Amino acid sequence: MDNKFLYELLERLKKGEIDTDAALDKLKILPFEDIGYAKLDHHRNLRKGFPEVVFCEGKTSLHISEIIKKLALCNSNVLATRASRDIYTAVSKICPEAQYHELARCITINNEPIQKYNSSVLVISAGTADIPVAEEAAVTTEIMGGNVTRLYDVGVAGIHRLFSHHDLLRKASVIIVTAGMEGALATVIAGLVNVPVIAVPTSIGYGASFGGLAALLAMLNSCASGIAVVNIDNGFGAAAMASSIIRLAEKN
Amino acid sequence: MDNKFLYELLERLKKGEIDTDAALDKLKILPFEDIGYAKLDHHRNLRKGFPEVVFCEGKTSLHISEIIKKLALCNSNVLATRASRDIYTAVSKICPEAQYHELARCITINNEPIQKYNSSVLVISAGTADIPVAEEAAVTTEIMGGNVTRLYDVGVAGIHRLFSHHDLLRKASVIIVTAGMEGALATVIAGLVNVPVIAVPTSIGYGASFGGLAALLAMLNSCASGIAVVNIDNGFGAAAMASSIIRLAEKN
Amino acid sequence: MDNKFLYELLERLKKGEIDTDAALDKLKILPFEDIGYAKLDHHRNLRKGFPEVVFCEGKTSLHISEIIKKLALCNSNVLATRASRDIYTAVSKICPEAQYHELARCITINNEPIQKYNSSVLVISAGTADIPVAEEAAVTTEIMGGNVTRLYDVGVAGIHRLFSHHDLLRKASVIIVTAGMEGALATVIAGLVNVPVIAVPTSIGYGASFGGLAALLAMLNSCASGIAVVNIDNGFGAAAMASSIIRLAEKN
Amino acid sequence: MDNKFLYELLERLKKGEIDTDAALDKLKILPFEDIGYAKLDHHRNLRKGFPEVVFCEGKTSLHISEIIKKLALCNSNVLATRASRDIYTAVSKICPEAQYHELARCITINNEPIQKYNSSVLVISAGTADIPVAEEAAVTTEIMGGNVTRLYDVGVAGIHRLFSHHDLLRKASVIIVTAGMEGALATVIAGLVNVPVIAVPTSIGYGASFGGLAALLAMLNSCASGIAVVNIDNGFGAAAMASSIIRLAEKN
Amino acid sequence: MDNKFLYELLERLKKGEIDTDAALDKLKILPFEDIGYAKLDHHRNLRKGFPEVVFCEGKTSLHISEIIKKLALCNSNVLATRASRDIYTAVSKICPEAQYHELARCITINNEPIQKYNSSVLVISAGTADIPVAEEAAVTTEIMGGNVTRLYDVGVAGIHRLFSHHDLLRKASVIIVTAGMEGALATVIAGLVNVPVIAVPTSIGYGASFGGLAALLAMLNSCASGIAVVNIDNGFGAAAMASSIIRLAEKN
Amino acid sequence: MDNKFLYELLERLKKGEIDTDAALDKLKILPFEDIGYAKLDHHRNLRKGFPEVVFCEGKTSLHISEIIKKLALCNSNVLATRASRDIYTAVSKICPEAQYHELARCITINNEPIQKYNSSVLVISAGTADIPVAEEAAVTTEIMGGNVTRLYDVGVAGIHRLFSHHDLLRKASVIIVTAGMEGALATVIAGLVNVPVIAVPTSIGYGASFGGLAALLAMLNSCASGIAVVNIDNGFGAAAMASSIIRLAEKN
Amino acid sequence: MDNKFLYELLERLKKGEIDTDAALDKLKILPFEDIGYAKLDHHRNLRKGFPEVVFCEGKTSLHISEIIKKLALCNSNVLATRASRDIYTAVSKICPEAQYHELARCITINNEPIQKYNSSVLVISAGTADIPVAEEAAVTTEIMGGNVTRLYDVGVAGIHRLFSHHDLLRKASVIIVTAGMEGALATVIAGLVNVPVIAVPTSIGYGASFGGLAALLAMLNSCASGIAVVNIDNGFGAAAMASSIIRLAEKN
Amino acid sequence: MDNKFLYELLERLKKGEIDTDAALDKLKILPFEDIGYAKLDHHRNLRKGFPEVVFCEGKTSLHISEIIKKLALCNSNVLATRASRDIYTAVSKICPEAQYHELARCITINNEPIQKYNSSVLVISAGTADIPVAEEAAVTTEIMGGNVTRLYDVGVAGIHRLFSHHDLLRKASVIIVTAGMEGALATVIAGLVNVPVIAVPTSIGYGASFGGLAALLAMLNSCASGIAVVNIDNGFGAAAMASSIIRLAEKN
Repeated sequence: MDNKFLYELLERLKKGEIDTDAALDKLKILPFEDIGYAKLDHHRNLRKGFPEVVFCEGKTSLHISEIIKKLALCNSNVLATRASRDIYTAVSKICPEAQYHELARCITINNEPIQKYNSSVLVISAGTADIPVAEEAAVTTEIMGGNVTRLYDVGVAGIHRLFSHHDLLRKASVIIVTAGMEGALATVIAGLVNVPVIAVPTSIGYGASFGGLAALLAMLNSCASGIAVVNIDNGFGAAAMASSIIRLAEKN
Repeated sequence: MDNKFLYELLERLKKGEIDTDAALDKLKILPFEDIGYAKLDHHRNLRKGFPEVVFCEGKTSLHISEIIKKLALCNSNVLATRASRDIYTAVSKICPEAQYHELARCITINNEPIQKYNSSVLVISAGTADIPVAEEAAVTTEIMGGNVTRLYDVGVAGIHRLFSHHDLLRKASVIIVTAGMEGALATVIAGLVNVPVIAVPTSIGYGASFGGLAALLAMLNSCASGIAVVNIDNGFGAAAMASSIIRLAEKN
Repeated sequence: MDNKFLYELLERLKKGEIDTDAALDKLKILPFEDIGYAKLDHHRNLRKGFPEVVFCEGKTSLHISEIIKKLALCNSNVLATRASRDIYTAVSKICPEAQYHELARCITINNEPIQKYNSSVLVISAGTADIPVAEEAAVTTEIMGGNVTRLYDVGVAGIHRLFSHHDLLRKASVIIVTAGMEGALATVIAGLVNVPVIAVPTSIGYGASFGGLAALLAMLNSCASGIAVVNIDNGFGAAAMASSIIRLAEKN
Repeated sequence: MDNKFLYELLERLKKGEIDTDAALDKLKILPFEDIGYAKLDHHRNLRKGFPEVVFCEGKTSLHISEIIKKLALCNSNVLATRASRDIYTAVSKICPEAQYHELARCITINNEPIQKYNSSVLVISAGTADIPVAEEAAVTTEIMGGNVTRLYDVGVAGIHRLFSHHDLLRKASVIIVTAGMEGALATVIAGLVNVPVIAVPTSIGYGASFGGLAALLAMLNSCASGIAVVNIDNGFGAAAMASSIIRLAEKN
Repeated sequence: MDNKFLYELLERLKKGEIDTDAALDKLKILPFEDIGYAKLDHHRNLRKGFPEVVFCEGKTSLHISEIIKKLALCNSNVLATRASRDIYTAVSKICPEAQYHELARCITINNEPIQKYNSSVLVISAGTADIPVAEEAAVTTEIMGGNVTRLYDVGVAGIHRLFSHHDLLRKASVIIVTAGMEGALATVIAGLVNVPVIAVPTSIGYGASFGGLAALLAMLNSCASGIAVVNIDNGFGAAAMASSIIRLAEKN
Repeated sequence: MDNKFLYELLERLKKGEIDTDAALDKLKILPFEDIGYAKLDHHRNLRKGFPEVVFCEGKTSLHISEIIKKLALCNSNVLATRASRDIYTAVSKICPEAQYHELARCITINNEPIQKYNSSVLVISAGTADIPVAEEAAVTTEIMGGNVTRLYDVGVAGIHRLFSHHDLLRKASVIIVTAGMEGALATVIAGLVNVPVIAVPTSIGYGASFGGLAALLAMLNSCASGIAVVNIDNGFGAAAMASSIIRLAEKN
Repeated sequence: MDNKFLYELLERLKKGEIDTDAALDKLKILPFEDIGYAKLDHHRNLRKGFPEVVFCEGKTSLHISEIIKKLALCNSNVLATRASRDIYTAVSKICPEAQYHELARCITINNEPIQKYNSSVLVISAGTADIPVAEEAAVTTEIMGGNVTRLYDVGVAGIHRLFSHHDLLRKASVIIVTAGMEGALATVIAGLVNVPVIAVPTSIGYGASFGGLAALLAMLNSCASGIAVVNIDNGFGAAAMASSIIRLAEKN
Repeated sequence: MDNKFLYELLERLKKGEIDTDAALDKLKILPFEDIGYAKLDHHRNLRKGFPEVVFCEGKTSLHISEIIKKLALCNSNVLATRASRDIYTAVSKICPEAQYHELARCITINNEPIQKYNSSVLVISAGTADIPVAEEAAVTTEIMGGNVTRLYDVGVAGIHRLFSHHDLLRKASVIIVTAGMEGALATVIAGLVNVPVIAVPTSIGYGASFGGLAALLAMLNSCASGIAVVNIDNGFGAAAMASSIIRLAEKN
């Protein structure tokens, strides 16, 4: 997976520092930790710039607690998403340093201060009901180093609420737009700015919104450009994309 | 179907002006004309305020010509939609007074001047490719008596094009919005005005627009109010709705 | 957003009554109220003819109560939809004047008598199970000033129940039809009248009704004209459209 | 498959008229004819009351001609559906007695007069464009022995056209309703009669009719009873169902 | 709705036995009973051969009890479907003669013995889990006068279970097949018999059965003929169709 | 159904050992047991290589217990899937030898040691949340005689976790891959091996995974070859396919 | 990708036969050939047991000819699928040894005799129209070494046609079932045999078959076991799966 | 729309350089050009960083030529997408400097050399058939200033083809992945890199790919992070997103 690792391995083999079987074994043992029901990818921080994130839905409190504990041992910052308060209670027993973000349904552990980027990420919600998804995006972006500004309830039905914050649009390096129903806000914003817009359809709506499908299709078909879409309700995914963008921006 | 008709019929029967069998026959013979492959609904003008409209798709040139000819004999104005130029050529041979509207793909016959309403209907298209649907709406509205103003290519990707015509929005009695792709224009407009907005999703788009489904769902889920939706590409349907609204408005 | 507002602002600036920065600030501060989790659009009454309506689903009782309280301070009439009895109980503690409409699941506050329009809106339900959606439409229409007549359980399976109320169809200015299952009632009614018909598909049905999709598609594909459709179960949306129509009708 | 056949076979075996291997062979050789690319089910006339019907779509003219030729040798009446005029031309070269039904796109061969049932089948189309499907149903019903009455273009947009033929509804033993768009006609008719109604959704429509899906879902969700549905555009299937019903009715 | 009724009415008017207004009123007062939240269609027994059936889902126990009570006053037999045991308990308090059919989730009241037809209806279920739908069909058929034979758990995975009851297939006048999952049983049976087959897809299944959609599509696309389909889980609808068929069969 | 059975039956008939009626009866009585609500297919072990498996969803504890009891009387090994712990408690009362597999939600009874095949089946899960489906596949494969190796949580987001177990991929005779979300793991594995890969989409995911539809479509469209797909969450089905493959492999 | 390759590479490096950079290069240059618009995977024969197969749809004749030419240089047998006769004509100009399989739309080149397996693969089609898909499966299986038996037009509408070939079912090692419409044949066959059944839904059908979706869903939901499914019309995919199974079977 | 523009406008008004009406007019006349059937958004270059791009589908050659001509007058670089060769021929007559990109179906005009960014964009295609979409992305990125590297035909079925170009993955600032069928390549790549990945599902595939839906859903549900999705076949949209990212990266 990693040319430098391979190269050094081959060099050591050539020099006789290790034998063939050991080399072969090394090739097999890239850094992950097998705890039976899970294989923790400790290599992910190197590869992706942030450690493996725990998606809590469909896992038991016990498993989540153990996984978070193990990740917290090897990483400065840990994030778990889609965590109910019950799960947080369980986790906090063995990781008392864990913090809970109620609206975002996230658990975070910060063993060390987060290394902040300068770029700012503007997280927008179309309605009040989209806030949990927006908060998941905001909390994720923050733990990944972004400076987050929140702008909530500025949907298209009262478009002047958005225009009155035009300065926020102009200052942002990346914009995350969460919107349910017809999802028009994403297109309106992408038509106004020239920074990357990441659209998150939410499952907010009823009837023919079909669980967010209406907003998803609308965002994919946006007549504006400079916009890309993540899965329905996937605030985390939008934040991960935003973070990869600002990481790139600051590297240059 | 019609209380007054029934009442008078019963009165005449009571007075002995007609006998029972004749009354029964009358009840059966509401005004339509059976020409084998079609039953022309001559009652529709009374009932709906405009004669039966010929939807040309899937009918032969011969049938269309004959139907138009027969409708033109009984009605002052006739409309046929979804008509190719070939169909128009065939029709014009037996109805030389017929006119063709290229962009709208409509044929019209005006035996008498159209009786105009005062109310104005604003027909908007989001993009250039939506114009055929918008024109179908415009031509239909005009023959039904509406004063049409056209405002084309003012989609959300460059929203100032819309705002620069804010005066048109304010003057309209009813607004028809045709838009494909993500259909956001309908919501933006409905958020700005207090007159009825009729949204027409178009099949313009590609990929995940799924033949207009994306725009349709978006319009149905609009977060703005005072908006209702017709079938994909159904410019005629939007115009018929608009006409029933201005007919009501002028009656009062 | 508002030419007159802009014009006067510019005049005051020109006359030196305000300086440039103040003008710029004014331009940003259109009337809405930012309470953190929501931005109340106090401008909506002017723009749309009725204040912002609270959609309760997915909001906490606390937030709903606060929003209603604030709206009630600035507006003569307030409406909240999709409100459970529990929400009403919470709201009534800080807004004791609030009324609950059980079937419609709506909360209303009338600080002043509603200003009534003359036009009558006929609200029809196909079955008994469609009544909640029909009631949401009726209560919304009433608080927006319409005179509502209710005609419930007149579905197509026993079509004489509808015909026996033919006089109601003839007297209505606008007709709202709520129907689930195959939604045929909307087409039958639109075929009989010449006033605008607003069709509301409901999620009533089972099996291949797919949560109202069958009725929605049927209504969009209606072979009758003078009909437009709102979202599944969207009684509020139908009423808002009906109100914009009668507002227009009475203005003329 | 056939108890009587089995019983007699076993009797003959018991009496020594045939030996075990022959009996086993008999069991394997139920009447069908293997011509390589097809296995003609000559047993179908006995089992289903009508010989195998040739569905022409996706077969070559040569294959269709050969299959029809072979079926015509063993059966008094032969039917081929979805046949273009080109296919008919090819077929008529080796089966000059074949007749073509242009509107129905059917080929028929009547080696003997059709044995007629007394029961009448009423075939209704909602619009002119539904006639090809209705004709496929009519031609199929006729060759299967039914007395067909046609009633075309009586859709719900002008419902009095239907009511004026109320006597036809009352005289029918079985009613086949073909309708596209919103398919409401099937429900209206099923609400009026007490004979079996077979609903055929057609692909006539545009936009959100999605190739007949709207009509199909509407018919499946009919609020009227005594109605069942066949595949989109499946005039043949409706006729086969109707024929099995009248066959049953006359047997009693 | 009813020529004879109209004719006699007109005769009485002509003879002066009633005046015009009374006649007009008569025309309006076809037999139904308006109890506010419902309009009971007492005419349905005459028109459809069986009184209105109460679909309990989405109605309150109180309403259901009242409706059943009223129907029981005017009809010899009453049927309510989709009734939980709780609903039955409520109903039995005011209609102690009501009986509950646990598996079928039906309530029946038989004021008089059911008038039985001779024809037999075979109700088949593919699996054990399809039995509730099959029982709804069976109980409905019985109260409508059919002789029901039940054949349960004979799905295609062990097709000999079906063949061992071949005699039942041969004796039936009409066959109702309830099947979930891939719904293949309906096609297999329709390939073996020449009586009408009514296919009921059930929502039994998981994963890509999508709530019965897989079985529904399979049944609609059946390569066998003499088959028609009702809505998913609609045991009642299948029985109503079957009853209309045997009613026809015995009338001849 | 079974030539040898038929042949011997016919021989006995010919020799006069049984008479015709008895033979006919025999033909009808293939081995299944009718217990009213179910017809247990005791022939399935002969025909399919494993006895009928009890799918518990939608059945009562009582019925499940009785069915398992009866199956256990005639078969050496019994399997019930989709069994909650409550069902197991009920079953274990009358079948105390029954064992429960918590993660797999399976009940097994082993009256005799399972006859093991040599071939090994590798069961892979993409994530921790897919483990229940993977365990259903593993437990089913084991009771059908396969040697199961489990490899869990090796999804594509950290593909080196998979490559580090490349030896397992090479040793397997058949591979079952369970994966939700985008299901890419199945394609990656099928691209690496030349043994049959059975892909099981799981319903794990959210938003636009639509209950496993995304993974299902991805697996069906795999660009790799040597892969086939079973229903969403159908661990049992994958194991049955795998077992039929290794049964074939060991027979040769 | 290949442990043995890696091991030997490391050994050579250790022995000084190659230096580190060369080893690293080797690791990068697994056998594929870059011809600009394509990267031919010459390693696939080793990895998957058969060389890369050319899917012709969407490629130009020129590109296809060049790719086939290059593959034919390195492999004993070459297969191209979805090839029109025009493509074959182009290919045969530079590969005169290429053969065309009209029905299967396949091009094959056999530089050496195919090495045959003993196992037989039975390829079944439900109808005549499914034969092209069945032939693609048959031709692919043959060039991959399988002994193919064809059994065409034995669909469920005349199920005795299948039963009369019961001996073929019993002799097969693997069965491929191609069926469109309701796809019931796959379930019926899987209920009768204990060898692996690979189901191929075809796009044959109309109306609500939705391009093969009906058959696909039916096959995925099969109530029989020992069955797995490939993509719609994917005869090649079924054959590749069948070949991987018989390869495994003969290896043991 | 533009604070600076507004501020200066207000300043000039305050200083009396312009009067109120002129200011108001200015506010309305943001830079676009109305040519009847289109409103060219000359402001877009300022707002979005690139002039309006002409989407040719559904427009006439004449209109496209005129629009391109007008855009070329005001902008240094012009791009038209989805252009057939016929359209190019028409355009080149009035814009002889226009260039055609056959594979990408794009027309470009470069009045001045493109100002290049340093960041490199890697455009990957999974298969040969995805190249047209990849080329649309590549050509668009280039005219917007990106340095494009192409890596084609490296799909997951032969994953070593991808790994052998691991260096390209490591050097890229942004990666665009075009893939049809199951779209797994996007997830595999996003699992390996830490730069933003933009996934473009293509409509390449057949059967259950449903025109790219399978790839679209797979990409939206990717288990890897740092990935976002654009519409099916929308190479342009991916490039516009990539360009907005590198523009941001280089600004810092």
